[in-house]
Formats: sequence, structure tokens, C-alpha cells
Amino acid sequence: MTLIEHLQWRYATKKFDSTRVVAADKIDRILEAVRLSASSSGLQPYELFVITNKDLREQIKPIAMNQTQVTDCSHLIVFAAWDNYTAERINENFDRTETIRNVRSESGTAYRQMLLNLYPARDPEVNFTHAAKQAYIALGTALIAAADEGVDATPMEGFNPQGLDELLNLKEKGLRSVVILPLGYRKADEDWLASLQKVRTPSERFINWLR
Amino acid sequence: MTLIEHLQWRYATKKFDSTRVVAADKIDRILEAVRLSASSSGLQPYELFVITNKDLREQIKPIAMNQTQVTDCSHLIVFAAWDNYTAERINENFDRTETIRNVRSESGTAYRQMLLNLYPARDPEVNFTHAAKQAYIALGTALIAAADEGVDATPMEGFNPQGLDELLNLKEKGLRSVVILPLGYRKADEDWLASLQKVRTPSERFINWLR
Repeated sequence: MTLIEHLQWRYATKKFDSTRVVAADKIDRILEAVRLSASSSGLQPYELFVITNKDLREQIKPIAMNQTQVTDCSHLIVFAAWDNYTAERINENFDRTETIRNVRSESGTAYRQMLLNLYPARDPEVNFTHAAKQAYIALGTALIAAADEGVDATPMEGFNPQGLDELLNLKEKGLRSVVILPLGYRKADEDWLASLQKVRTPSERFINWLR
Repeated sequence: MTLIEHLQWRYATKKFDSTRVVAADKIDRILEAVRLSASSSGLQPYELFVITNKDLREQIKPIAMNQTQVTDCSHLIVFAAWDNYTAERINENFDRTETIRNVRSESGTAYRQMLLNLYPARDPEVNFTHAAKQAYIALGTALIAAADEGVDATPMEGFNPQGLDELLNLKEKGLRSVVILPLGYRKADEDWLASLQKVRTPSERFINWLR
């Protein structure tokens, strides 16, 4: 299938088949695609939580408006963004890059210093929002990677982030949940959305050409 | 190439070959992939501007820290998010879905009403931020779609959004620029980043398993 066919195939699955488990190699490739996603200055300001534990997912369900995907899916992915940009986090990232590339350049040092001057001094809420946006790039990747593996997925914002942060002890890790993504296999005959036509804004309403 | 190979191939191109133009069918497929991207409640709360006009790109360059990609690229894509969620926009979307699917359900009507009650009453800045995040899902799609076509791309936040909004008259369209994406072909021998190893956060630092 082409990328466009994958995008047409996928949809926000409403009902998962709770008896089916996604194979480990498929999950690994989806997670690796996410890890390779682009991010601003390459900081990758978020972490993933991959939850298979059944008790924990039962506890998450009421935090997520009792949506059944949370417990019926095979793997529940939580995208948790950095609550702030700190000098420590920025330095860890730049140190890693210098070590792996075995290059320390003047421009690299100047760029690091620019971020160190700019980011930690900003309102933490501004930084968190910026970090959360980067996680959404990765969400875009994850949806394509899942479809590429024939795996269904449901991007979900309908949950109480504070409740989830508390349950997963995210605050002490300096993280805040931004979006969750159940992965699994659709139970098409019990999913009202599975057979409905995909609707998108028409191109002429969506794309403006300035030639 | 596999999706993972595409993600490894791509990088934030620093120097484009200004003599090369991306073929129309490739651009069309990249834009179509973006149009098919997921968004919260399917609202697709952003528009794209595809800029090939050279004069206009010369005017954008100083707004974007004089980064040469803006003028050297083949096509410059601007992702512009809705400045607010209005009843009109929500209704247009739900009306379209009902028309195309030829279904008007009780649950669909209730869902529309929930959004109408919730979104327009919120702080416009909250709504804009939410809309901008949806555009970042599409940015994630665009980067993969470009790589899939062998087209280079540079996701860029380094520009003055107010300046760009003014130049493109986005305010009167109820839009605000959030990220720009030059598309084209790398000039590898003049691009310092082209030959450097891609660096990502190691899996064990990035992925947390809760089994």
C-alpha cells in the first residue's frame, strides 16, 4: 500500500478486539519510527509510556471518559511532554550529539548557548506547549507507522491530563501527558465508525496556492 | 524503502539546490497526505499555503531570520492554524460530514452540540493552541510524505509569525501561521548537516514500559 492508501485505511478506531495482541516486532517498529521523528532543535522533548498492564489500564479508563479503547487495545501509548526546558535537558541533548558525532563546532556551541539563554528563562507553560507540539509531530508519525503495520490506532485527547499525570507519577519525572494512543485491532462489526466514509476538507478549501 | 528508512534518510535540510523544482505530482501527493491527516474531532483546523512565487519568498526571507531555504527551495508550505474555533467553522465541518455520509445520527448531533458548547466559549488563545497542535500532526505526515517522494524538507519554527501573518493577510482569514516547511532537493556538498549522523534519544531513555 502507498502512504496515501495507508492514510485512507486508518481511522480513529472506536472498538478494539480485546482478544488480539499486536506482535512485539510491530510495536518495536512503531516506537522506533516515533523515536526517529523530527523535533525542534532535535530536543525530542517528550517520552513515551507503553502500557500493557491490565490493572493500570483499568485505572486509566475512568480518567479517559470510560472509553473502552483504553482497556480493549493491545498496547496503550502515552505521549508525555517535558513540563519545561531546563539547562540540564538542553545540555544532555547537545552533549549526546557532540559525543556521537565526535564534533564540537563553534556554531554548535553558539546554538546551544542561544537555547540556554532563551528557553529556561521563558514561562514554563510556554515551554510545555512548545514541547507538546513536538509530541504531536511524533503522533503524526505513529499513526502512519501503525497503519504501515496494519495496526489500528485511536489518537485520544479526551482524558484528564492531571489525573493521568498523578497515576503515572509524571510530575516527579518532569513530564505532563498530552495525548494517548491505543494500538490494537479493530472489531469492525462492533465499531460504528469502521464502515463510514472518511471525510476531509476539500482541497480547494484547504490548500491556497500563491504562485 | 521502509518507513524507518525514510525517517533515517530525511533531515532538516540546511541548503537546497535552487535550480531544482519538485514535480507537480509529487507535491500533489504530499499535500494529499497532509489533507488526509488525523485531527481532533476531524475538524482539520488549519489551512496550507503553497508558495512558489519568488517575490513573495524574497519578502518572507527576512521574516524567517534570512534562512536561505525559504528562497532556495522549490515549494514553501505554510501551515496556518485557525485563530479560534467558531460555531460557523464547527457547523461547516459537521454539515459536510453529514452530507457526504448521508447520515444524521443522534450521537453525531450530540457530539456537534458538545463542541459548540465547549469550544467557542473558550479563550481564543486556548483554541488556537489546540488548532496549532493539530497542524503539527500534519507536519509529521508531511515530513514522511516528502521523504516517501525523495523530496527534502526543513520544518522551520524560526520565523516571526506576526510578520508572516501580516504579509499573507492571514488575520482577515482568521488564521495564524504556526510552522513553515520548505520542500526541494538538498545541495549536499554545501549542506553541513547532510553528511552528519542522525542523533536521537536512546530508546531506554525515551520509552518507558509499564507491563
